[in-house]
Amino acid sequence: MKAPSQTARAEAAERLAGLATPAGALGRLGELGVWLAAVQGQCPPEVPERARAVIFAGDHGVAAHGVSAYPSAVTPAMVRTFVLGRAGVSALAAAHGVTVRVLDIAVDDDLAGLDPEVSRYKVRRSSRPLHTEDALTAEETQQALDAGAAVAAEEIAAGAQLLISGDMGIGNTTPATALIAASLGMPARELTGRGTGVDDAALAHKGALIQQALDRTRELHADPFATLAALGGADLAASTGFLLAAARAGVPVLLDGVIAVACAVMADRIEPGAAAWFAAGHRSTEPAQSLALDKLGLEPLLDLGLRLGEGSGAVAAVPVVRSAAALLRDVALLSELGI
Amino acid sequence: MKAPSQTARAEAAERLAGLATPAGALGRLGELGVWLAAVQGQCPPEVPERARAVIFAGDHGVAAHGVSAYPSAVTPAMVRTFVLGRAGVSALAAAHGVTVRVLDIAVDDDLAGLDPEVSRYKVRRSSRPLHTEDALTAEETQQALDAGAAVAAEEIAAGAQLLISGDMGIGNTTPATALIAASLGMPARELTGRGTGVDDAALAHKGALIQQALDRTRELHADPFATLAALGGADLAASTGFLLAAARAGVPVLLDGVIAVACAVMADRIEPGAAAWFAAGHRSTEPAQSLALDKLGLEPLLDLGLRLGEGSGAVAAVPVVRSAAALLRDVALLSELGI
Repeated sequence: MKAPSQTARAEAAERLAGLATPAGALGRLGELGVWLAAVQGQCPPEVPERARAVIFAGDHGVAAHGVSAYPSAVTPAMVRTFVLGRAGVSALAAAHGVTVRVLDIAVDDDLAGLDPEVSRYKVRRSSRPLHTEDALTAEETQQALDAGAAVAAEEIAAGAQLLISGDMGIGNTTPATALIAASLGMPARELTGRGTGVDDAALAHKGALIQQALDRTRELHADPFATLAALGGADLAASTGFLLAAARAGVPVLLDGVIAVACAVMADRIEPGAAAWFAAGHRSTEPAQSLALDKLGLEPLLDLGLRLGEGSGAVAAVPVVRSAAALLRDVALLSELGI
Repeated sequence: MKAPSQTARAEAAERLAGLATPAGALGRLGELGVWLAAVQGQCPPEVPERARAVIFAGDHGVAAHGVSAYPSAVTPAMVRTFVLGRAGVSALAAAHGVTVRVLDIAVDDDLAGLDPEVSRYKVRRSSRPLHTEDALTAEETQQALDAGAAVAAEEIAAGAQLLISGDMGIGNTTPATALIAASLGMPARELTGRGTGVDDAALAHKGALIQQALDRTRELHADPFATLAALGGADLAASTGFLLAAARAGVPVLLDGVIAVACAVMADRIEPGAAAWFAAGHRSTEPAQSLALDKLGLEPLLDLGLRLGEGSGAVAAVPVVRSAAALLRDVALLSELGI
């Protein structure tokens, strides 16, 4: 995996130090501007006006086993809501000039009446229940990775300067937590969160199912592709392929919550160095996300208590990225002002 | 002081609970949307597209006594940089569709060659050194409060839906910290921060001068107007008048760092209830800001390590306020979707 430009990074750090502001006064926005210069390969960086969120929707067999506060029927209903532009991420995206595309990768519904483009990359109806069997075959996993990569290529060809991977799928924090636990070598109980809001009993049950899945697949955990097949799902594999293709193409990605970050961990395991192209948009209330971000060396820009999924936390953070670019590009240099 | 609309607040809380999102999934953005509905007196709230930052610039006699890393000559140079649109807040404002106005309230310079409108509300050249004498007379304090109120009225008449008070003035964290210390009844050493970045010795010296000012004026601290005159400065009094007039007119304000929050504390002491019209944009690295926000019952939206002043943290937070409004206004209701 190619690294971001060290030349642009060094130029940006020098420019930051020369701005007409006290040393360090731009805080994280200063650091973020330097990262943006490095991933864009230019200093000053451009303000990423063309930001695109792609939502990878999919159902999970494990959702029928008491891990979520909601039934899988919500997944196709929410896909229809994205198409209508009336979901949470739709509202945030419209407010901030971000565009949204939703893709049915493994929704357990035929989505009758929707534009067939929505299901163009569909791999299967629902991934298999990961606590008892592998979520995907190797062929399905590769198909999903390829689908995500193809989507990233389409979006980059259409001019996207900043990409976001969103998620929709009842039960999807379960495979995401399993992928992170397997990758970090940690027990499920230290990583499992409440998702959309399960109670204490369901939380304990969810942790037990994730641990069962980890125990079932322990000999695979050193192999990221096999781990993704066994513990992930088609939507997560597509998102992983999307992140990998963005990194390969040198297009920065703003990560959302535990689903996106689980996929980022898998992408960085499949091609070490991929995470250098990612920034973290929002801190999730899921413990697995914070621990995975630590491992990737990323610190979220926002902490607003969102637990909506959909890429919403990353879309809400797009203006922060634009702030960073604008500061490094537009603030006067001390040398210009003669102060 | 009139309170925000309880009717709109209740309607907004009900609307939030009825959105097609899991309960509580919008986190702080949900709460912020409810507040916005209450201060606008309507549900759903409008997205505040017309946001305006007014920077109140002024010098401080105490700056000549070793409390800042920079000399007072930087203040007029930065006023010129705001007029050129090349300061940090200028870049952020342009990126987010916020407009900026700078006013010389007490800059220790005649600002030759600038549009006289910039100095139209000037009270004096520099406020007096607060550790040895009152920063302002009662007449100057009233003049500054009236100036801020007049500016707020102008901006509201011009259509501002969200106001921000910015600051520029070398040494201004010293009077801001003194005002907060006097209002909270706390010793200077627990509240004093590094401002633009003084070293340990200067930090200790700054704390000692603030304590000297507190000790000199102790019998006044129960009277907010007298405290503002003795320990503030013309720029801070103008900002306080601006905040009071905004609250009286029912126009919400997004607060920036320690200067704006010190003025918010004074406004809420002069007219209790004023703080209900304020939200906090960004957590400052100054300890006094966090303690004062606790007293006002406010929690910042962003924590990006900015310590630039100028209203920059509040301008960076404007998109967060817009996110909150957009979510409450645009996300589908469950009842509409029939989920």
